[in-house]
Amino acid sequence: VKNNIVENMRIGRMADRFLKAPHRINAIHEADAELIDLGEESDSVLALTTDALVEEVSSGLYDSPYFIGWMLATINFSDLAAVGADLLGLVISVSLPEEQSEEFVIEMADGISGACNEAGTFVLGGDTNEGKTLLLSGCAVGLVPKNSVLTRKGARKRDKIYLSAAAGLGSVYAFLRLFQPGKKLPESFYVPKARIKEGQLLRNFASCAMDTSDGVFHTLDTLMRVNRSRFVLFNEWEKILHPAALEVCRAEGIPPWLTLASVHGEFELCFTVAPEKEKDFLSEAGRIGWHPIPIGEVGDGWGVGVQTAERQIEVDTGSIRNLSETAGSNPARYFSELLALAKETGI
Amino acid sequence: VKNNIVENMRIGRMADRFLKAPHRINAIHEADAELIDLGEESDSVLALTTDALVEEVSSGLYDSPYFIGWMLATINFSDLAAVGADLLGLVISVSLPEEQSEEFVIEMADGISGACNEAGTFVLGGDTNEGKTLLLSGCAVGLVPKNSVLTRKGARKRDKIYLSAAAGLGSVYAFLRLFQPGKKLPESFYVPKARIKEGQLLRNFASCAMDTSDGVFHTLDTLMRVNRSRFVLFNEWEKILHPAALEVCRAEGIPPWLTLASVHGEFELCFTVAPEKEKDFLSEAGRIGWHPIPIGEVGDGWGVGVQTAERQIEVDTGSIRNLSETAGSNPARYFSELLALAKETGI
Repeated sequence: VKNNIVENMRIGRMADRFLKAPHRINAIHEADAELIDLGEESDSVLALTTDALVEEVSSGLYDSPYFIGWMLATINFSDLAAVGADLLGLVISVSLPEEQSEEFVIEMADGISGACNEAGTFVLGGDTNEGKTLLLSGCAVGLVPKNSVLTRKGARKRDKIYLSAAAGLGSVYAFLRLFQPGKKLPESFYVPKARIKEGQLLRNFASCAMDTSDGVFHTLDTLMRVNRSRFVLFNEWEKILHPAALEVCRAEGIPPWLTLASVHGEFELCFTVAPEKEKDFLSEAGRIGWHPIPIGEVGDGWGVGVQTAERQIEVDTGSIRNLSETAGSNPARYFSELLALAKETGI
Repeated sequence: VKNNIVENMRIGRMADRFLKAPHRINAIHEADAELIDLGEESDSVLALTTDALVEEVSSGLYDSPYFIGWMLATINFSDLAAVGADLLGLVISVSLPEEQSEEFVIEMADGISGACNEAGTFVLGGDTNEGKTLLLSGCAVGLVPKNSVLTRKGARKRDKIYLSAAAGLGSVYAFLRLFQPGKKLPESFYVPKARIKEGQLLRNFASCAMDTSDGVFHTLDTLMRVNRSRFVLFNEWEKILHPAALEVCRAEGIPPWLTLASVHGEFELCFTVAPEKEKDFLSEAGRIGWHPIPIGEVGDGWGVGVQTAERQIEVDTGSIRNLSETAGSNPARYFSELLALAKETGI
């Protein structure tokens, strides 16, 4: 808790220069999307987010044009899912090098379109430029009913912590792509979906929510700070982690929980539900065929812990987050420092 | 009219892959911003636009960090001005190279903040990344009353064509920066402002509107195509052009009207007003201290013409627009080809 988050400092040094918008409901870092009051006549709040694909493309982590397009839309929709928005759509800003093939551009557009279709929404427009490198930025908009706005803030002691589905796939995808580039992964190995329907249901049940796009520990760290409380994770890795993630961990000798610590996540929603709402929540979720995974509980104090049968182990999630800033551009160094942190932890 | 617009083809090859959003009011190319129906309960339409700074920065055309920030906000706000929106604000997506100085980032943020302040609005949020090059993309949102939506479509024969203010400054700014890089221009030489108040007033009076960000002839070409009509410009260059633009043209021996043809414009609004509304319009404009400039009239047929005392000269605005696509990345070639086109025209 003591450490400063480098990412937040970088955002802060710009944000400090801006006046606070009086009609923005959320404070900085307190929601996945910006929540804008539309005035008294409106029953809805505007939800708005922008996200770019930069290192994922330049590092080769995302290389198929369809997948690049899919991810550009999904990273933006996922932020709206985390505030429980009904989607209005996406605008995109694309800069294409002159030599980029027609085929690449069309497949990328199909990927964007595919992710829109999956989320039940549309491309509303955009801007294309010619540039020296491929640049991709998106902005998604949606509406949230004024009386059920969902943010990262609102968790209380004894709330149960959930994931919308098992995690760890984004992390092992990045591991395999960066360290075993020859290995052919099936196209379907990692195809994240924005949890739109789930987020809409959470409006009525969750006390806070955030997506796991930067990894589960990153999310827990943020939620713990925003809510000034303690997020305790159960050590039930077989339940929390995706089977494919567990398999890779076994084969490579990586501690399974480490897949939750890496900065490349998987766009699940991490959220808290008050004990008195849990039964109704699970019953409503079941109705839409959704089986959220309980992963922990909000406890006393601050920080992030892992509960084993014997004791509660402290996880220095601040340092884990900062690793991606200090070593993130060098995958080998990032991974070895992450392993070193894991050993210190003793989970 | 016969020629295809390369820029539209590039946008089209992506746009063709997307489903048309049923709640988007405007057709593609028919408004500066996307106009989204918010449902029956809402009296407003959401206006949404995204625009990136790419070549302006990589070419060095914009280099001071304050000006880069100012322009990032202004290019986006200007699109909202052209649909007559009340601004809600801006989200930005910024990727910064590790070596970018703290000072640069703060001055850029101040430029964004300055343009927000000028436009009476706010930064709502954003996303920062670390990347290899400086990438800047913005997305501005606003609201337009449902019963007075302004688009590029709606001009009728005999409508008067106006500019919100004298044009040509953006063009000579680019000329001087690219061809006389040693020449010190005063900071205030070219500081475009989004015409927000003017656009809001135009909701009640204009039959169509578009900003001149890509130059006045580009705008006239688009409006002529969207409205399937003829846009005729008066040859009153002393009235239409900014004094500083006229001065540069005189000193350099450039035909003054050519400053309207270059692709680097100045974010004025170009709009049409029906004859029966003209008197009331000018009186309301005067009330807010605004003196719009009449520059031409919508006439019979198609295309763009320049009316001299003797005759009407045809301007091949399609070829002028395409020049920026085929030669735009090479300023010297672009300028010499533009001069050649000008000579052919015989204005």
